[in-house]
Amino acid sequence: MMRTGADWGERCADWLRRVRETRPLVHNITNWVVTNIAANALLAVGASPVMAYARREVADMARISAALALNMGTLDEPTVEAMLLAGRAAAEAGVPIVFDPVGVGATPYRTETARRILDTLPLAVLRGNAGEMGVLLGAGGAVKGVDSAGAASGLPDALANYARRAGCVTVATGAEDWVSDGTHTLKLANGHPLLAAITGSGCMLTAVIGGFVGAAGRHPSREAVLEATVAAITVYNVAAELAAERAQGPGSFQAALFDALYAVTPEQVAERARMEEVSE
Amino acid sequence: MMRTGADWGERCADWLRRVRETRPLVHNITNWVVTNIAANALLAVGASPVMAYARREVADMARISAALALNMGTLDEPTVEAMLLAGRAAAEAGVPIVFDPVGVGATPYRTETARRILDTLPLAVLRGNAGEMGVLLGAGGAVKGVDSAGAASGLPDALANYARRAGCVTVATGAEDWVSDGTHTLKLANGHPLLAAITGSGCMLTAVIGGFVGAAGRHPSREAVLEATVAAITVYNVAAELAAERAQGPGSFQAALFDALYAVTPEQVAERARMEEVSE
Amino acid sequence: MMRTGADWGERCADWLRRVRETRPLVHNITNWVVTNIAANALLAVGASPVMAYARREVADMARISAALALNMGTLDEPTVEAMLLAGRAAAEAGVPIVFDPVGVGATPYRTETARRILDTLPLAVLRGNAGEMGVLLGAGGAVKGVDSAGAASGLPDALANYARRAGCVTVATGAEDWVSDGTHTLKLANGHPLLAAITGSGCMLTAVIGGFVGAAGRHPSREAVLEATVAAITVYNVAAELAAERAQGPGSFQAALFDALYAVTPEQVAERARMEEVSE
Repeated sequence: MMRTGADWGERCADWLRRVRETRPLVHNITNWVVTNIAANALLAVGASPVMAYARREVADMARISAALALNMGTLDEPTVEAMLLAGRAAAEAGVPIVFDPVGVGATPYRTETARRILDTLPLAVLRGNAGEMGVLLGAGGAVKGVDSAGAASGLPDALANYARRAGCVTVATGAEDWVSDGTHTLKLANGHPLLAAITGSGCMLTAVIGGFVGAAGRHPSREAVLEATVAAITVYNVAAELAAERAQGPGSFQAALFDALYAVTPEQVAERARMEEVSE
Repeated sequence: MMRTGADWGERCADWLRRVRETRPLVHNITNWVVTNIAANALLAVGASPVMAYARREVADMARISAALALNMGTLDEPTVEAMLLAGRAAAEAGVPIVFDPVGVGATPYRTETARRILDTLPLAVLRGNAGEMGVLLGAGGAVKGVDSAGAASGLPDALANYARRAGCVTVATGAEDWVSDGTHTLKLANGHPLLAAITGSGCMLTAVIGGFVGAAGRHPSREAVLEATVAAITVYNVAAELAAERAQGPGSFQAALFDALYAVTPEQVAERARMEEVSE
Repeated sequence: MMRTGADWGERCADWLRRVRETRPLVHNITNWVVTNIAANALLAVGASPVMAYARREVADMARISAALALNMGTLDEPTVEAMLLAGRAAAEAGVPIVFDPVGVGATPYRTETARRILDTLPLAVLRGNAGEMGVLLGAGGAVKGVDSAGAASGLPDALANYARRAGCVTVATGAEDWVSDGTHTLKLANGHPLLAAITGSGCMLTAVIGGFVGAAGRHPSREAVLEATVAAITVYNVAAELAAERAQGPGSFQAALFDALYAVTPEQVAERARMEEVSE
């Protein structure tokens, strides 16, 4: 039986406490658009970011990290090879891997690369926007550049099926967010439309998921990964709600988002968390 | 006959409406300093940014985009090759190309690369600061690193001559901005000195020009490109004026600039637009 | 005899005036996380940044610059080669070089690269956080990813010894900052804890040190480099104190930091400077 309602809010709060106590080191191989803001999101929420891309060091860095976050937003061959090297080292060491297939479906190269990573690395979490996840999982949906251009109605089932088959947690974000570990599928309802007005809001979330999953230790159980992922999304989205109260547009919202990730309390998270389990 | 005065203000407002309605996808191959802020400027004004650099995908991405914005701020060989591949694909598909020759004249490599792009790709818009455009068009002027260090008095004529010869629209920005399509040359007078206090304010403008020219459709007429370019500069500079009213320095100005690009109304643009045609 | 107390505050103020009058061009080869904010920090304080990475142009760019700032935060082979090419050209031209060995000790590749740069280039300033400098100088200390994880008690001596041996100025930053030229060792006490909550605060300081050392002219004396470095750190940290008064967290702090670097007056610097010489 899965925890629901108020209980989930408390679990999210506990995971936030755990991140701030343990300050997990998250190795990011991410895109050039978000390197700065992904690092800042991790620092603000209480984790410790490191960005390292060189093939000569990524395996070493992944091994000493608590989580590895891969993001193909501005992929090229050296970076893809670095992702695979880091991913294999992480897998051997039991370091959980989070993957964000940015813009999959926009070009053949992105689709091939996403497939290659899915086929090669044992992911803990696969996170994309609704368009990307629909395209990647064959459920329909559309991608415009790197933005979602439409979700498919069958997306929750596709997320659950892939999670079960691949043994990972799947996430599709959008106006509402879906998370599944194949057994439990949740719909999360926090967040704010201004997130869509700043670039890399999904990529920052991927990094933050790395921070929370990294707080679960090496070789985390699937249930721990599910909980940590739900907590990361909820903390991030509650922070976005708090930030939006102070923002006058996307520029002040981005600054306020870092302030809120830094200041948000476990109690606020527990109180504001909104989610429901839709299948079991 | 060219529209002038109040009429130009209305045209700028119309172009802003068109960008927000059509959300043109702009493929940027830009420098590492501004990837984040160029994407955010496009999102804020209502367009849709994508950053893609890999030789294996840039032609695919350029073909599905509404405009291609090239910027050589941190050029290297793979990126220059990617620009040429993307540019050829864009040209074949009628996708307008905007080029920003950042720092041309500062090193031989930058000068050669700018020449190579000018000689290879049919540009819709060539935009630089006054120093860069003076150097590039042989009108004098100077460059210090990537900043303008002086404009030449003959710059407006040089802009018009090159625009006529190359069949494009030329732009030189600074305390005042010059735009020419070879027939019509305009002096634009909106903007704020704080733009010079943040890095990449010119590069963001280049991206925004991509968004507006992208709203003109494939194979746009030279007149449409001229109008879209004038509108992009005016909207950007009016937003800068609004942002400066709230700013306490360059850091708060940058955040406020995104807020203003997001919030500025077509009516504000029409009312505040200041420009004059100086030759016909 | 070394200046102390109030006199040092006045010297810091003078160096700030000199930076703003001469606007030194600082060539940065830095990491992907901080390109934007390092450029903005330099612009805000009154210097002129240029970012150039390509092997084909870095020597040309370094030669025309007032200082060269190298930072290995996201090193890879082409970038390391570019650093060496730029560094040799700078050294020949008497352009002072500042080096930031980000994350040294975290992976063998970083340690080897830092050694290679130390062995190849005549540095004016070597700056790291306390953990990095301890590891690099064999004084103990620890590094977690790219963050300091502990300083060694023997650090001030190690800084002085290396400065003397290598003929440079050494800096270890943290809750308090240490600067030594081998003869004079100072403890600097300005700054604010929020600096540790934003990514790249150390990297921005490295760039700003480049701006101040660049104001000392070609072939600067060791005493000039020491003074310029102390001034850069003090100006940066006083700006951080001013920014923190307005900030509500790390996001608003970062924006306020640029505002404060732009607005801080020499008089404020002279008044707020706190430092003491601990050996002579």
